[in-house]
Amino acid sequence: MAEPREPQTGRTDGEIGTARDRVENTTPRGDERKALILETALSLFERDGYEKTTMRAIAKEAGVSVGNAYYYFASKDHLIQAFYDEVSDRHVEQALAAMRPHRDLASRLSVELHTWITVAEPYREFASQFVKNAVDPNSPLSPFSPESKPSRDKVIAVHRHALRGSTAKVSPEIAENLPDLLWMHHMAIVLFWVYDRSPGARRTRELVDRTSPMVARVIGLSRFKVVRPLFREADKLIRDFLLPGDEPAEG
Amino acid sequence: MAEPREPQTGRTDGEIGTARDRVENTTPRGDERKALILETALSLFERDGYEKTTMRAIAKEAGVSVGNAYYYFASKDHLIQAFYDEVSDRHVEQALAAMRPHRDLASRLSVELHTWITVAEPYREFASQFVKNAVDPNSPLSPFSPESKPSRDKVIAVHRHALRGSTAKVSPEIAENLPDLLWMHHMAIVLFWVYDRSPGARRTRELVDRTSPMVARVIGLSRFKVVRPLFREADKLIRDFLLPGDEPAEG
Repeated sequence: MAEPREPQTGRTDGEIGTARDRVENTTPRGDERKALILETALSLFERDGYEKTTMRAIAKEAGVSVGNAYYYFASKDHLIQAFYDEVSDRHVEQALAAMRPHRDLASRLSVELHTWITVAEPYREFASQFVKNAVDPNSPLSPFSPESKPSRDKVIAVHRHALRGSTAKVSPEIAENLPDLLWMHHMAIVLFWVYDRSPGARRTRELVDRTSPMVARVIGLSRFKVVRPLFREADKLIRDFLLPGDEPAEG
Repeated sequence: MAEPREPQTGRTDGEIGTARDRVENTTPRGDERKALILETALSLFERDGYEKTTMRAIAKEAGVSVGNAYYYFASKDHLIQAFYDEVSDRHVEQALAAMRPHRDLASRLSVELHTWITVAEPYREFASQFVKNAVDPNSPLSPFSPESKPSRDKVIAVHRHALRGSTAKVSPEIAENLPDLLWMHHMAIVLFWVYDRSPGARRTRELVDRTSPMVARVIGLSRFKVVRPLFREADKLIRDFLLPGDEPAEG
C-alpha cells in the first residue's frame, strides 16, 4: 500500500499572504522561501487570474529573483502541483488522526471529508477563480491528470485507510478498487465546495453529512452478489475514461 | 405529465453562420431574424468569449439594429436560454422518434444520449469555450438554474418517456423521481462531451455505450426492497442541493 506521506513542511497556518510578512523579518531558509513563493503565487492567481500571472510577477511580489523562483518551481503548473501536494499532505495527516476514534465507515468518510474542507477552506476564493483551469480533464491542472497523480494517490490512499480501518464488510475483489470510487465521491464534494457561497462552507458540510452515510450504504450493498460486478465496472469506467494510462496505486 | 413540446422553428440545419447567408437574400420574417441573431451570437461567443461579446456587436454582425436585437432577446442570458431551448427541442423531437423501436431501457437511454450528441455536436467548440460560465451552479447559465428550468424539464420529460415506454419494471414510488436521476446521468455525459477532443465525439459515444447498460442495471436493482430508499434519498439530495426551490415537473 502507498502509505500517505508525512507533510513536507512545518507550516500549519492556512492564510494566504501571511508567509511574506513573517519571512521578511528573518533570513529565509530554502523551504521557507519556497513556501513564500507558493503563497505569493496563490494570492496573485486569485487576484489577477492564473493565465495573466507571470513567474516574473510572482518573483517580484515575493521579493526574490526570477531565477530563484524558477529554481524552486520550473513553471506555473509546478506551483499548482505543489499547492495540491501541500493541501493533500496536511489533509492526510489531519484526516488519519481524526478518523482514528471512529470505526463505522460512514463516520470515517464523513470525518475525512470534513477534515478536507477545514484544510482547504482558506483557499476557497482562490479555488473558485481557478476551477475553470482545473475542470478540463485534458489540463495538467486537472485532478485527473498524470501530473496530479502524486497528490491524487495520497488522497486515494486515505480512502483505502478509511475503508480498511472500518467495520464495513467488503469482499476483497471489491475492496481493491473501492478507494477510486470513494475518491470520485470526494471529487464531487470538492466541486460542490468550489461553488459553495455559504459562510464556512456550511452547505458543503451539510452535503457531506448527507452523502457519507449514503455512500456507506451503497458499499454495504456489495454483500449482494448481483451488485458486485457493478462496482468493478464502475471502477473500470473511471480508469478507461477519466484516468487513462494511470496505473492503480499499490494496494 | 409535461409532454415535450414540438420544436418552435422549422430549421433543421445545425451549422453556425449559415443562417445569415440564407437570410441576406430574402426579406427576413420575424423568426428567421430571431434565428439569425441567435446563430450570430453563438459564433461571436465562440470567437470572442461570452463576457467580451456585447449585444451591440451581435446586432452589428447580424446586420440588425441594437433595438431590434433587444426586441428578440432581452439580454445575453436570454440568448443562451434560447440556445438551450432550441437544442432541447430538436433533441426531444429526434430522441422520441429514435427511441420508438426500442423497448429495453438500456437501448432507450443509449439512443436518447446518442441523439443528443448528434444534435449538440455542431456546438461542441462553442460549448468548450462556454463551459466555464455554465459549470457554476449559481449562474443563470447553469443547467441547474431556475432560468434553465424550461429546457431542463423538457430533457427530464424525455427520460420519463424513455422509462415509461421500456420493459423495465420499476415500482411507482421510484418511477416518479427516477427521471431526475437519469437527467443527472445525461448531465455527466454532457460534461464529458464538452471536453472530449476525439473526432465526432467518438469517446463520448463509447462512454454512452458503457454507462447506459450500467444505469439500466442500477435501476433494475430497485426491485430489491433494501435498495429502494437509496433512490428516493438520491433524488431528494439533488432537489435539496442542486435544484433548490425547483418544483418537480408534473409526473
